[in-house]
Amino acid sequence: MNVQGRPMRTIWLRRDGRTVEIIDQTRLPHELAIVGLTTLGDAARAIGAMQVRGAPLIGAAAAYGVALAIAHNPSDAGLDEAISTLAATRPTAVNLRWALAEMRRTLIEVPQPRRFAAALAQAGEIAEADVAINQAIGEHGFGLIAEAWRRNGGSRRVNILTHCNAGWLATVDWGTALAPIYRAYDDGVPVHVWVDETRPRNQGASLTAWELGQHGVPHTVIVDNAGGHLMRQGMVDLCIVGTDRTTAGGDVANKIGTYLKALAAHDNGIPFYVALPSPTIDWEIDSGDAIPIERRDAREVTHIIGCTEEGRHVAVRLTPEGSAAANYSFDVTPARLVTALITERGICPASRAGLLELFPERNS
Amino acid sequence: MNVQGRPMRTIWLRRDGRTVEIIDQTRLPHELAIVGLTTLGDAARAIGAMQVRGAPLIGAAAAYGVALAIAHNPSDAGLDEAISTLAATRPTAVNLRWALAEMRRTLIEVPQPRRFAAALAQAGEIAEADVAINQAIGEHGFGLIAEAWRRNGGSRRVNILTHCNAGWLATVDWGTALAPIYRAYDDGVPVHVWVDETRPRNQGASLTAWELGQHGVPHTVIVDNAGGHLMRQGMVDLCIVGTDRTTAGGDVANKIGTYLKALAAHDNGIPFYVALPSPTIDWEIDSGDAIPIERRDAREVTHIIGCTEEGRHVAVRLTPEGSAAANYSFDVTPARLVTALITERGICPASRAGLLELFPERNS
Repeated sequence: MNVQGRPMRTIWLRRDGRTVEIIDQTRLPHELAIVGLTTLGDAARAIGAMQVRGAPLIGAAAAYGVALAIAHNPSDAGLDEAISTLAATRPTAVNLRWALAEMRRTLIEVPQPRRFAAALAQAGEIAEADVAINQAIGEHGFGLIAEAWRRNGGSRRVNILTHCNAGWLATVDWGTALAPIYRAYDDGVPVHVWVDETRPRNQGASLTAWELGQHGVPHTVIVDNAGGHLMRQGMVDLCIVGTDRTTAGGDVANKIGTYLKALAAHDNGIPFYVALPSPTIDWEIDSGDAIPIERRDAREVTHIIGCTEEGRHVAVRLTPEGSAAANYSFDVTPARLVTALITERGICPASRAGLLELFPERNS
Repeated sequence: MNVQGRPMRTIWLRRDGRTVEIIDQTRLPHELAIVGLTTLGDAARAIGAMQVRGAPLIGAAAAYGVALAIAHNPSDAGLDEAISTLAATRPTAVNLRWALAEMRRTLIEVPQPRRFAAALAQAGEIAEADVAINQAIGEHGFGLIAEAWRRNGGSRRVNILTHCNAGWLATVDWGTALAPIYRAYDDGVPVHVWVDETRPRNQGASLTAWELGQHGVPHTVIVDNAGGHLMRQGMVDLCIVGTDRTTAGGDVANKIGTYLKALAAHDNGIPFYVALPSPTIDWEIDSGDAIPIERRDAREVTHIIGCTEEGRHVAVRLTPEGSAAANYSFDVTPARLVTALITERGICPASRAGLLELFPERNS
């Protein structure tokens, strides 16, 4: 998507053919900092410190990290060391492990002198595959937005609420939940996005607002508390969110607070869509109750990072010394509250039957 | 309630009989600053700058403000000037106007030489009346908490979720939503409070957490997004919130985000109570749809105030320059989601019939 008027991705190979460049997302939205990675250590640090985040982008970054390692040491031992180093950066990321397995499967067959070129090619393929999946999600979801526009007779903009960041910054390009919105905007459909700030890490206020603004998509940041009121007032036409894991039964694990927005959408008869690349589907479990919910550092609740008037990034304390804080990262939205799932193969009900219609090869 | 182990109120007359002292709530939770008010201007600034806030406390502070004005100018003109100055500080506060009308009604009958003493006495009465109302709310609500404790067989603490600050800091003492919790805690019932941080102004993280902590009540601060997950996990036994205005039909206007928590409580079969002093009931309207919702400065969303490691209070920017933000202060929770109202006269269903049972004098 566009940044300062020009197309950009979250990760790319520099013309020197040896440096992988990324946007340092920890500096957004206050600063656009491009970081060059040239070693395995660089890549592992970028993932571990969340300079790159979002499941699909982590997968692509890990793949490029393997390539950078091989540039210095193309041996089988070097390959395995790279993979174990990168796998340890974000222990729960599914795409990370998938991308590393893909790299190993391909490269172990390639003679060492050709391994670096093959690794770059394979990492590039993983990145392109992500872009293609997200474009397809955008195309399918676009139909839902266009339909909402037709429903209101083309008389006013379509108001879409989203939570957290499931935009191009979480992927290589396009994003998942935001792909349909970019597609609609590029097509001339007047859209406006309500951006939940998404405490505690504020990915909405910092990342979603930034990427929508850079591409020119009209949007308004709201606190997480506001969405229910907007829905009651008829100010939301549809909701689209991403997901970290969706069960075969259609229950959706996503950033904490998603469930509350789904309840409000349901209470007000507003469609609630979840956009997901199919690798996010967990075919092993039906019920979301089986998904473990990560608890993160309480400091994300007690402190917040922002930018002072002088342009310094600082963390400030919000709570009294001595008050405990708890930080649950995700919640589960039961399938009954999800209007439909938007996948790269099309749109389906949030149910095993619905998913199997699109992914019949999973029928066993 | 207790602060540093000793009982404290939010407003009191110093022993000199001429200085009204308050806690500067804009410095909490990072600093306990006591401010002395000796003039009308001091009182108006304290209310306008939200050093004191919360409808009942604003009423008491305005009453004391009239007394301070009269100390300098006991004439009828002085009285009326004081009243119009104080009324302009928070244009939408109902208690403020009520307290000022009470002061004028009493004082206009009193000869000027005795007006200051009469004004102090009347302001003291307004403050004591607030304490008595809140104690009664605490007593009635205590029964609900004790019942929840009995239901779990006394085997574990009672988990209560609250939103915003409806504690003693919003009143003269005890609070509304927190009064039953203090009452239960003082009685030895093991309680634990989930404190919503309550973006954008963070009254939960800064005020509720501070006052609970000072009194010794176990509590945990969570982001506003977390409550739904906690309820799904069985980690909340009941919710108690306050209200800015409740209609005769039982619809509840309260801090933005209350509606989302009521939806989650309803979805999980968890009781959702609203504690309110009866002056908060708007007998003129039945439906919450008729309540105008204040929009405040977007800067409360784009920026947040916190405390640096060096102990400085600073505002930091959270959103990108150029991103719009919207700041809706309240939402309306429909009566169908409210289990019961807790008033100073007892507990009743959130309906006109329920309220009239407790307030039969309103039956016309």
